[in-house]
Amino acid sequence: MSDQVLNYLTENRDRLLNKLKEFLAIQSISTDSLHKSDVRQAADFLYAYLENIGFDQMEIIETPGHPLVFAEYNQAGKNAPTVLFYGHYDVQPVDPIEEWKSDPFSPEVRDGRLYARGSSDDKGQVFMQLAVFEAYMKTKGKIPVNVKVCIEGEEEIGSEHLYQTLYDKKDIFEADFAVISDSGMVAKNQPTILYGLKGFTGIEIRVDGPDHDLHSGMYGGAIRNPNMALAHILASMKNMDEVVTVDGFYDDVEPLSDAERKLIETVAGEDYAQATGAPSTASEKGYTAKEHTMARPTFEVNGMYGGYQGEGTKTIIPASATAKITCRLVPGQDPIKVQQLLKAHVDKAAPSGVKVTVKKEKLSANAYKVEPDHPLIKKAAESYTKAFGKETVYVRMGGSIPVVEWIEGLYHIPIVLLGFGTPEDRLHSPNESFPLDSYDKGMETLVYYWETFTEN
Amino acid sequence: MSDQVLNYLTENRDRLLNKLKEFLAIQSISTDSLHKSDVRQAADFLYAYLENIGFDQMEIIETPGHPLVFAEYNQAGKNAPTVLFYGHYDVQPVDPIEEWKSDPFSPEVRDGRLYARGSSDDKGQVFMQLAVFEAYMKTKGKIPVNVKVCIEGEEEIGSEHLYQTLYDKKDIFEADFAVISDSGMVAKNQPTILYGLKGFTGIEIRVDGPDHDLHSGMYGGAIRNPNMALAHILASMKNMDEVVTVDGFYDDVEPLSDAERKLIETVAGEDYAQATGAPSTASEKGYTAKEHTMARPTFEVNGMYGGYQGEGTKTIIPASATAKITCRLVPGQDPIKVQQLLKAHVDKAAPSGVKVTVKKEKLSANAYKVEPDHPLIKKAAESYTKAFGKETVYVRMGGSIPVVEWIEGLYHIPIVLLGFGTPEDRLHSPNESFPLDSYDKGMETLVYYWETFTEN
Repeated sequence: MSDQVLNYLTENRDRLLNKLKEFLAIQSISTDSLHKSDVRQAADFLYAYLENIGFDQMEIIETPGHPLVFAEYNQAGKNAPTVLFYGHYDVQPVDPIEEWKSDPFSPEVRDGRLYARGSSDDKGQVFMQLAVFEAYMKTKGKIPVNVKVCIEGEEEIGSEHLYQTLYDKKDIFEADFAVISDSGMVAKNQPTILYGLKGFTGIEIRVDGPDHDLHSGMYGGAIRNPNMALAHILASMKNMDEVVTVDGFYDDVEPLSDAERKLIETVAGEDYAQATGAPSTASEKGYTAKEHTMARPTFEVNGMYGGYQGEGTKTIIPASATAKITCRLVPGQDPIKVQQLLKAHVDKAAPSGVKVTVKKEKLSANAYKVEPDHPLIKKAAESYTKAFGKETVYVRMGGSIPVVEWIEGLYHIPIVLLGFGTPEDRLHSPNESFPLDSYDKGMETLVYYWETFTEN
Repeated sequence: MSDQVLNYLTENRDRLLNKLKEFLAIQSISTDSLHKSDVRQAADFLYAYLENIGFDQMEIIETPGHPLVFAEYNQAGKNAPTVLFYGHYDVQPVDPIEEWKSDPFSPEVRDGRLYARGSSDDKGQVFMQLAVFEAYMKTKGKIPVNVKVCIEGEEEIGSEHLYQTLYDKKDIFEADFAVISDSGMVAKNQPTILYGLKGFTGIEIRVDGPDHDLHSGMYGGAIRNPNMALAHILASMKNMDEVVTVDGFYDDVEPLSDAERKLIETVAGEDYAQATGAPSTASEKGYTAKEHTMARPTFEVNGMYGGYQGEGTKTIIPASATAKITCRLVPGQDPIKVQQLLKAHVDKAAPSGVKVTVKKEKLSANAYKVEPDHPLIKKAAESYTKAFGKETVYVRMGGSIPVVEWIEGLYHIPIVLLGFGTPEDRLHSPNESFPLDSYDKGMETLVYYWETFTEN
């Protein structure tokens, strides 16, 4: 049944890969206002592509930030289900640029991997979905399901306007279930069903001392150093046993059952130290690295800076110091409450001689968990296994996809996470890449998945 | 006797000020290799100026880094003493450039202050010395003392090659005493004799974790965060009572006598919080801010950085984090020993999961103290009082001038610190400036000082 569709993908492989490269070459960095028009260009690319495939209607939905691409295909008939496909076309910044071996926006294949910012997160995976829709249209004349496409341009900056759009446009986005391709497998070629995601919250701490950088000889001993004050505040928030020491942080955490700990233990997973180059792993006291990553909340200082960073020394007491902190949360934790706990801790820990302010990160999301034996999930697992020739594993992961929580909260529909990334993809880092065999087998998985709906 | 010389300075004020502005406009930032030729240009400026005054011989002494300007004047006669005048023509970097109200290298007078990088530290004060030499030559036909000039271009990067030059060229630099104008007064228009300076040492701590920035969702909980590890290491080195908690740090510190504490208390000094804009002062438990600044060792994190610093959030575990630390030391403390204590502490505090390396700062210097009743010091105090119309105070200060220790160690001659800076000068910071009345009265002080040697 699906041979024709698969043949189309094989015969058109070069052309489609070039089309993907064209998409990846667009510098759609959503966090950087200098790239505003590039972000728009990526939306235009998708609009044109969807129109060309034969979708029934397309719309670029404006938001106060970057636009969202909507498209609808409704020729599968009234008896076929309607799927809401979500993805994002914006990408992370590329700094430090000097660490890239090839230009992040000049896609290049090396050793079976396609190197480019967004190749894995998420332009590459979005493109795979669209290419499979194209293959169905060009061979069978139709897609087995009705489709509503929702591809946003603000995922990497917290999907600032997505919730409002999903809320306002319920009528056009409504569907029977949702499919999202913005995640990965536990290992390359290891089919993986994600049944749990973490929530998310964050704060920024700023310590202000003197109103200008001071000569450390003239004022050292009289004025509190903002760098040192910040170090003390941060050190008071998580200890070296990787236990968060903020009052109440763990209060509402859903305990990890022995059954689930056993399930986590059976997942092959990756060698974290080897994959990252760190000397060894470090995880919360009482939990393995896998348990902490998949199913326990985390606290990370994503950025920290104050004072002189140049060559040599500069003997100053800096005017200020800043830390950017984000937490990944598990079921039970309320992100807004956690944010309040973090702020209360910092307010209490602030020493004299400096002014400490806490800015609450706008984005926050609850954690998500779905039943692994839902029929739509099972179909996905079978499709993976058929394409990759390997049993599918079920895991929870440390990442957060706020849209999952929002779609669930607003539309009350099942969500299937069809991700194809690999642990070596270097998401958000220099030299992001995506394996071409995952690209091919991923599309094969999608062909099998949509095929299951023709039998309905 | 000195009226003629003072008149010359008054009559030529505009011309001399313009000449100083020309000197300040040269971007002689020694730490930045892009400014290498600018640094050389500042040396050439001094060479030409000294030649024009009528010095007997000039030489630009090459070093492996930036050159040093030597000049000799020997027409005061065999009975007149020979003074070694030391200063530096290099300046600190200007970042953050956006905080400057006027261009750091386009000198501008506003509200009685001359704004420019180096206006106080040290080009302005060097120029005052040379202008007074000029005034003597153009009016009296001679300077009351023989002079050897030593103006280096590497003070702001630790005077890397000065010690070797002073060591190698003892024959040309030898003198009866030294005068240095690279310091300040406790308050504007408050004549101040510095009888004690702090020593100096430093280290850089680098924490390396994964070999690239990691996605905090994929690896949070498995990999130690270098920012957090660094925060813990730093917090373990000095507590919030401003007491350094590194083993042995205070072991050799010369205790502060009750007499000296009383002397420090009597110095008017400045309102540290008001002068700096900090909410309040913070000093070592058991010592006042003035005591800590003037006579107790300090520990400052001059710079600290790791991970994302841009707009918005970037949910990463950074690959590394760095802290630049310098200490100001008091008599009794051996800078090399202190550096070893710091390193030993960090090595012990380093947690698992990261690699912590300590780089020892090349520059280090012992603290310095001189007897306040030395005749050359008393002459200086009297000259100050005559020019500023106010009793001179005697203080120790928190700054470090390695050259003071080196000249003392190599030449065994008395050193007189004739500084004219004010606490509001913003050394090493944006909007560095120097008050024009301190400029005028400072030169008057120097005229009186040299005048005392004509009576010999």
